[in-house]
Amino acid sequence: MAKNLIQSFESGHIYSKQQKNVLIVYAHQEPKSFNGALLRKAVETLEADGHSVEVSDLYAMHFYPISGRTDIVGSVRDESFFKYQMETKSAWQNGTLSDDIKVEMEKLKRADLVIFQFPLYWFSYPAILKGWIDRVYVMGFAYGGGKLFSDGPLKGKRGMLSFTTGGTGAAFCDAGMFGDMNVLLWPLQNGMLRAVGLDVLAPKYTMLLRMSVTMTGSSGWMTGPNVSITYSKNRLSSLWTFPTLQTRSCQTNI
Amino acid sequence: MAKNLIQSFESGHIYSKQQKNVLIVYAHQEPKSFNGALLRKAVETLEADGHSVEVSDLYAMHFYPISGRTDIVGSVRDESFFKYQMETKSAWQNGTLSDDIKVEMEKLKRADLVIFQFPLYWFSYPAILKGWIDRVYVMGFAYGGGKLFSDGPLKGKRGMLSFTTGGTGAAFCDAGMFGDMNVLLWPLQNGMLRAVGLDVLAPKYTMLLRMSVTMTGSSGWMTGPNVSITYSKNRLSSLWTFPTLQTRSCQTNI
Repeated sequence: MAKNLIQSFESGHIYSKQQKNVLIVYAHQEPKSFNGALLRKAVETLEADGHSVEVSDLYAMHFYPISGRTDIVGSVRDESFFKYQMETKSAWQNGTLSDDIKVEMEKLKRADLVIFQFPLYWFSYPAILKGWIDRVYVMGFAYGGGKLFSDGPLKGKRGMLSFTTGGTGAAFCDAGMFGDMNVLLWPLQNGMLRAVGLDVLAPKYTMLLRMSVTMTGSSGWMTGPNVSITYSKNRLSSLWTFPTLQTRSCQTNI
Repeated sequence: MAKNLIQSFESGHIYSKQQKNVLIVYAHQEPKSFNGALLRKAVETLEADGHSVEVSDLYAMHFYPISGRTDIVGSVRDESFFKYQMETKSAWQNGTLSDDIKVEMEKLKRADLVIFQFPLYWFSYPAILKGWIDRVYVMGFAYGGGKLFSDGPLKGKRGMLSFTTGGTGAAFCDAGMFGDMNVLLWPLQNGMLRAVGLDVLAPKYTMLLRMSVTMTGSSGWMTGPNVSITYSKNRLSSLWTFPTLQTRSCQTNI
C-alpha cells in the first residue's frame, strides 16, 4: 500500500523510467526524406532511453492496403454476398485472418505507444497507411460490441500523429485556405486514435517542407539540423509523461 | 449575341437538358452491397436522362493504390533521392506516368461531374479510393503553380460524395461520439474536391447500414425499396441545377 502511494505520487517520474514498447507505423517511399529522418531520430532516441521500438515500414514491407476477400484465408461465411466487416470479425475469432494482418495486430498488442509517421497527403494519411488502419482495425479486435473510445479495446496505450506538410501554417489556420489544422485532424485523432481506445498525444508536425535541392542537399534530410529542432530529445523522452488530449469520450447509441 | 442572352436567361433549364459526362469512382468489394445498388441506380437514372456515364470500379479493376516509384515509367530525375511530388509532376509533363494513372486522368478530363461512391471507413475514404486521389491528383494536372480552389485545374466540373455509414445520425452530430458530420467531411469536401477546383454538391449519405440478413435478404440490396428512397430520381436528375456548397475559396500564400 505504501509503495502504491509513492508510485502514485511520483507516477510521472517512475513511469518515464520503465522500459516501454513503441510501434512506429511509417509511410514514406524514400529513406532520405524528412519523414525518414524523423523516423530514425525517434528510433535512436527512444532506444537510447531504454525502450523497445518496432517499425512497420509500410512501403519497404510492400504492405498490401486493400481490404477485401483476400484478408480471409480459406472459406468465408457467405461467399455469395461478401460483407467485409462481419467476415473479418469472424476470421479474427477463428484465427483465419491473413498472416500480414495478424503480424500487425501482434505489434499493436505489444505496443504501449503507437506513432504514425507520414507526409500529409490530401489532408489525411497516404493510402498505404489508411490501408493499414482499414485492415488491422478489425471489428472485435479494435472496436465493436459497444467498445469504443474510453472503453475501446486498445485502451491503456498511447497514440500520436507525426507528420509533415507542404503548406504553411497560415494555410492551415481557420482563415487559411485549408482551414484549421485541428479540424482537419479531428477525424484522424478522434476517429482513428481515440475511437479504438488510444490516449492521444499532441501531434508533432512540421510544415512547409519543400523538396528543393537547396534545402535538402544531395544526402537528403539525414544530417540536417532541422531534424533535431523538429523532433527534440526532450519531446521524445517525455512522451510517457505528457498529458493526453481531451477528446470526446461520451457514449451515445450507435 | 441574342442567342447568348437567351441561354443566359434560361441557363438552368438548357443546361439540365444537355448531355453531360459523369464519372463515378466506386469503391466497394461486393456488387450486392447498398453501395453497389446506389451505383447501379445512379448509372441507370443518369443514362435514362441522356447522360454518358463512366465507372471506375476500383476493386473490380484491381486499382493499385500505392503512390511510389512505379508510377513513373522509365527513368526519374533523381533515382538516388526519390521525391514523389516532383517526379510525378515531371512524368506528367513528359508523358511518362504509368498508364493506369493516364487512363483515370482522361476520365476526369472528360467528366462534367465526378461522384465518389463508397462506404465510410474510419471517417474517410477506403484506402483504395484514397489511393486513387493520391495517384491521379498529380501536381501540375490537378493543382500546383498557385492553381487551387476557384482557380483549380478542374474548375467548371462538379464533385459529390455519396457514401454510407454504419453509425447513426446521432453519433455524427456535434454532441455525438463521432462529432459533426460537416467537420468530418471538411477535409474531403474542401480538401479533395474544392481544392482542385470542383464545385461541390451537397453530399448524399445513408446512415445506419447494418449487414443483417433480415435487412438485406439473400439477394442483397439490389431490389430493395431503400435504394429508391435514398437515391431518388429527383435528386439524380437535378445534379446539374443544384446550387453548390459555399466553401472556402480564398487564396492565401502557400
